[in-house]
Amino acid sequence: MRRKRRVPEVVVRRLAMYLRVLREMDLAENRFVSSKELGEKVGVTSAQVRKDLAMFGEFGKQGVGYQGLFLGTELKRILNADRTLRVCIIGAGELGTALARYNLRRYQKERDYPFRIVAIFDNDPSKVGVMLDGIKVSSMDQFKKLVRDLDVQIAIITVPAQSAQNVIDMGIEANIKGFLNYAPVKVNTPEDIKIHHADVSLDLHQLAFYL
Amino acid sequence: MRRKRRVPEVVVRRLAMYLRVLREMDLAENRFVSSKELGEKVGVTSAQVRKDLAMFGEFGKQGVGYQGLFLGTELKRILNADRTLRVCIIGAGELGTALARYNLRRYQKERDYPFRIVAIFDNDPSKVGVMLDGIKVSSMDQFKKLVRDLDVQIAIITVPAQSAQNVIDMGIEANIKGFLNYAPVKVNTPEDIKIHHADVSLDLHQLAFYL
Repeated sequence: MRRKRRVPEVVVRRLAMYLRVLREMDLAENRFVSSKELGEKVGVTSAQVRKDLAMFGEFGKQGVGYQGLFLGTELKRILNADRTLRVCIIGAGELGTALARYNLRRYQKERDYPFRIVAIFDNDPSKVGVMLDGIKVSSMDQFKKLVRDLDVQIAIITVPAQSAQNVIDMGIEANIKGFLNYAPVKVNTPEDIKIHHADVSLDLHQLAFYL
Repeated sequence: MRRKRRVPEVVVRRLAMYLRVLREMDLAENRFVSSKELGEKVGVTSAQVRKDLAMFGEFGKQGVGYQGLFLGTELKRILNADRTLRVCIIGAGELGTALARYNLRRYQKERDYPFRIVAIFDNDPSKVGVMLDGIKVSSMDQFKKLVRDLDVQIAIITVPAQSAQNVIDMGIEANIKGFLNYAPVKVNTPEDIKIHHADVSLDLHQLAFYL
């Protein structure tokens, strides 16, 4: 969607946090939540909450707040998280394996977790064929075919830095539109591809700055 | 530092990316880098690069650009990454173990990697005492003492959601100022504590939005 492209990533991240907080509240039917309450739980001002939500519609009433369950449903819809999203992991090393298990478990346990790992890829012959919580590690030779057959929409990249550009190019060719890149390297992607850099060293640098 | 508190996180993240790109370029002495070149590699405009860097001083000359090695050194200083930073991991599950190994390896291999894992903690008796690449998993009973003795500055949180607030409170009590939280839950921290939420599901939501 063209319109969505213009929404800043920080806003989207806050929307995801509002949704998470609403889920954690385990709301009763007809429970109203104020922008102040939501803001406090996420760590932003109530004005910020109202501004973020107003970008997508009118969900609350002045003086009353938002009906919690309704807002949760709307946020899921806005975030495209009201459906199952099919995710693959490229790189079955330690980080890839840990992330696969982590997501598989959350998908099993949480009633609303939208991200389903459907394939794991690696080039190492000693890893291909290994079962990871019910999913077989596949060779990169199978990549294009499996991504299409399984309709994969998002790829999590956990290969070494020097392989990241190559596997992301392969992903783009296979029509994957979103990449979560854990490889500690900048990669080039066309305008219509969304990539998020989750490299732990960037996160640590961000913390170190404020120490 | 009070002044640093006011620098937005997105700017700090870009600074870390400029530094990474400069490292990847493996620069020769006296090689100059323009804001255009740096911006292209990071995926921002040259004006953005100049604006970000100008917040911290004058590092370049108009028409010539930045002396690459000098800018790298300055960025490391600004990011507090010109020294070794001592990091602990709380939660020796799969994700914690994978992150510990990953960081230990980068610290060994990369000449400039500033983040050194010095302790790993877990409450599970079957994990306490296990060696992870040369570091023994310690019990949470030892936490306060070890964090002080080893002068830990940053904690990576990989415990389950319901334990996150508790271990972060313990970390704050032990004088840790920065937390990288992988637990999928919002936690409350005082103003002077910096926390970054690295939960993979937030990252995935961010991608799903743009699909």
